Amino acid sequence: MTITGEQIIASQFSKTGSKAFTAINPNDGSTLLPEFWEATTEEINKAAQKAEEAFMVYRKKSGKEKATFLEKIADEIVALGDELIQRCMVETGLPEGRLSGERGRTVNQLRLFATLLKEGSWLDARIDTADPDRKPAPKPDIRQMHIALGPVGIFGASNFPMAFSVAGGDTASALAAGCSIVVKGHPAHPGTSEMVGNAIVKAAKATGMPEGVFSLLQGASVEVGMALVNHPLIKAIGFTGSFRGGKALYDTAVRRKEPIPVYAEMGSINPLFVLPGALKEKSDAIAQGLAASVNLGVGQFCTNPGLVVALDADETDNFIRTAGNHIGAATAGVMLTGGIKKAYDTGVKKFIEQDKVMIVATGKQGETDYQATSYLLKTTADNFLANPELTEEVFGPSTLLVSAQHKDELLEIARNIEGHLTATLYANEDDLKEYAKLIDLLERKVGRLIINGFPTGVEVGYAMIHGGPYPATTDSKTTSVGTAAINRFSRPICYQDFPQSSLPPELQNDNPLDIWRLVNGSFTKDKI
Amino acid sequence: MTITGEQIIASQFSKTGSKAFTAINPNDGSTLLPEFWEATTEEINKAAQKAEEAFMVYRKKSGKEKATFLEKIADEIVALGDELIQRCMVETGLPEGRLSGERGRTVNQLRLFATLLKEGSWLDARIDTADPDRKPAPKPDIRQMHIALGPVGIFGASNFPMAFSVAGGDTASALAAGCSIVVKGHPAHPGTSEMVGNAIVKAAKATGMPEGVFSLLQGASVEVGMALVNHPLIKAIGFTGSFRGGKALYDTAVRRKEPIPVYAEMGSINPLFVLPGALKEKSDAIAQGLAASVNLGVGQFCTNPGLVVALDADETDNFIRTAGNHIGAATAGVMLTGGIKKAYDTGVKKFIEQDKVMIVATGKQGETDYQATSYLLKTTADNFLANPELTEEVFGPSTLLVSAQHKDELLEIARNIEGHLTATLYANEDDLKEYAKLIDLLERKVGRLIINGFPTGVEVGYAMIHGGPYPATTDSKTTSVGTAAINRFSRPICYQDFPQSSLPPELQNDNPLDIWRLVNGSFTKDKI
Repeated sequence: MTITGEQIIASQFSKTGSKAFTAINPNDGSTLLPEFWEATTEEINKAAQKAEEAFMVYRKKSGKEKATFLEKIADEIVALGDELIQRCMVETGLPEGRLSGERGRTVNQLRLFATLLKEGSWLDARIDTADPDRKPAPKPDIRQMHIALGPVGIFGASNFPMAFSVAGGDTASALAAGCSIVVKGHPAHPGTSEMVGNAIVKAAKATGMPEGVFSLLQGASVEVGMALVNHPLIKAIGFTGSFRGGKALYDTAVRRKEPIPVYAEMGSINPLFVLPGALKEKSDAIAQGLAASVNLGVGQFCTNPGLVVALDADETDNFIRTAGNHIGAATAGVMLTGGIKKAYDTGVKKFIEQDKVMIVATGKQGETDYQATSYLLKTTADNFLANPELTEEVFGPSTLLVSAQHKDELLEIARNIEGHLTATLYANEDDLKEYAKLIDLLERKVGRLIINGFPTGVEVGYAMIHGGPYPATTDSKTTSVGTAAINRFSRPICYQDFPQSSLPPELQNDNPLDIWRLVNGSFTKDKI
Repeated sequence: MTITGEQIIASQFSKTGSKAFTAINPNDGSTLLPEFWEATTEEINKAAQKAEEAFMVYRKKSGKEKATFLEKIADEIVALGDELIQRCMVETGLPEGRLSGERGRTVNQLRLFATLLKEGSWLDARIDTADPDRKPAPKPDIRQMHIALGPVGIFGASNFPMAFSVAGGDTASALAAGCSIVVKGHPAHPGTSEMVGNAIVKAAKATGMPEGVFSLLQGASVEVGMALVNHPLIKAIGFTGSFRGGKALYDTAVRRKEPIPVYAEMGSINPLFVLPGALKEKSDAIAQGLAASVNLGVGQFCTNPGLVVALDADETDNFIRTAGNHIGAATAGVMLTGGIKKAYDTGVKKFIEQDKVMIVATGKQGETDYQATSYLLKTTADNFLANPELTEEVFGPSTLLVSAQHKDELLEIARNIEGHLTATLYANEDDLKEYAKLIDLLERKVGRLIINGFPTGVEVGYAMIHGGPYPATTDSKTTSVGTAAINRFSRPICYQDFPQSSLPPELQNDNPLDIWRLVNGSFTKDKI
């Protein structure tokens, strides 16, 4: 497949600009062809306009029709075969096994949302039947369900070039909700983006979807993204990336004439609390698992554990020693971009230069500028509590171990951290009784709590929450992974005293779609 | 009952300030005693601090315990008896019948949320069971449910001194979600606020709730409210009122170090489309109903129909004449405050001074400065479309009738309006077929669509949406009336691989609360 370097706007290639950028192969720093063209204002406007036109058609497609579209996208991505994986490998430096796995995850996400649509109950249909005889006033018939929000702008993430990029979780959930989308591809993997974009175009054609349901804009400057967020026809934004990036989009969106929601997942340090009982029982296994989790994907997971808290004790010394051995043996991995590698080095340096932070172990040095060295750092709880900058995320394969003198100091850390995606407890039964307060505190800080596991696996299912209080995200009420992600792109509407023929099928008396509905306050699939 | 004029902070009266204000009786402009004290910074901080402490206890109360609390609040409000109604009448100018009705609505809202809590399924509990044998990696156990957001700041509205004030819809839904609250009472009815506040304090004591679960701050300046929105311990805001007021709170909240959601219902002009078939069949009845809806509560309903659109036809002339007769016969009603009356006069004046707006009918003149005269105004569709200021809400008993030359012009109006709470169609069967596109367009603009009714009644139930796209509200995904209002004050969290004893009862295998749960994607009440 030839990569054109052009925008894809409503199924057409487009090149009206003159500013170009290229992808870099982080394995060797070489420039990858072809050149990609920065989207122009004209192209951004056209993509938004086409998305608006398509929305009026696409939002009325049935759940089954949208499901067919999503499944076809999945098939078309699979059909790209090895060519997609190879291009993605040179653009991201991620290994083949990881990328085949990520493709599987991407395809599964699309299929999961297709399943959700075919079942249909996600719409939260509610019916309060009329009572014409009620006194003093007759009770009207009120029926509620969710409808799609409007055209959505989606930003591809650098660290998951498929699962959180052009056909990733935001795309799957926005299309499932009935929204047309304009994707701003991440400039670190523009070829991968174009290939996946073509797969979506093919799927839209094959399943009879309106052309403007999907567009892909390329760009290495911030202007393309900002223009998208500022476009009056765009009604919501999905983003996964840095705090700085997500916050900039949020600040722009809330200052629009019509403010719109920004669903930005901005990372997290994912604190891990290793409690005394667990440490006594399985210190070595936890240390080994920790090192593996820290190094997974060269530490470039949003759920990478960047903070480990334990009580100061003999077992802790042993735990630190073992973790240090594992981190020390870690080979340097290629990071996604030069910018990410540089930010990692700066972040680690900032920590190390702090007076009371000690280096426990340093992994192997890399041979190129793109390879990151792992670090296990250590400090005391009072130093950690006194220096809020130590809670900042260092995106990459390092973690900071904080030793607390006693239980209260450990709880104080939980009380003082900001919002994160996850928090993890290593705990045995006694620990869970003794540290019930810790769970109580952490529930207010995170979107996901894990016991005796590592946060780096994010299961795609019905119950997953990949989100959390600010600054982990800009909207703690949402998730970007799992079926509940669809709720970001819909809103409720209600119909009062509508005749059957004017109601959407979801709300008609005889429940033709056989979905679950809340009828006068009770869940049922019964007809009215 | 003596009204103290003091703040109520965690069940204690408090007076540390020296700045006072008084309520005014809009029936005669007289000053009402006692004086009320503006909350000081110290008092605001204390209320927020107490709310935070109480939250850690209150959020863990069971649904049944919270239900008992809400029901007790309802009982205590009823127990205030006629004294509450009498004070409210002199503070608001609203008649006794309306206020007894509103008290009934307030009490019913509290009881409806109690019912919701006792049933328990609102939490959206989800369970994805583990599969330890899955390849390549074992599947963890993931369980999700909603938890309370944190201490909430609530602003009392002027136009519903009970149903959207101290113990109104925001209070009922926030307390139901498990949030502690700090209410900023509306300065137009501070005595009513204090009396209802006392009822909540009594109920909290009687049902063993932590004292800080409720506080009431009084104030006539914007500073008290802004300090509340800016307080770092406050995690969400509920507001019903003007666009200017709601937007100011929103702008403040999104600029905080930690931005928080603001649920502001900011009013609406609630367009009403009278279609040709309906006009032929029942022009007089619609005209009479329209006049009644426009004048209801002296036009001080958020759902007041401020815009009526019809095609230019003989029936329309008759319709306008009849509506004009009814509006012309309307007596002047006492508005809630001098400020509201002044804003109404200014708004009407601005419309009338517009070249192509004509006065069809003017209601009776009032005898005092607080009495508002009804107006029926008229203009053409092309003038309306050319002058966006004619879409601004004039809060009070006036409405603007817009005549369109043809169907496309009528649809163009629907296409051009901003977000509103409601839109209404008067239509017969043929109209609904002919104007299907109108519903399609309006679905994107409003939270509630009504056929052959008036928007001014807002039913409190499971299916109601009282919300809509910006600028009707700051969050189109929410409602401030009906049980879905509870979702504003909760957020999802998930628990990975938690042992049964550490899970909340809602997520335990044997489903002790007998709630509906999504287990591996299917709704069920079954045990795992």
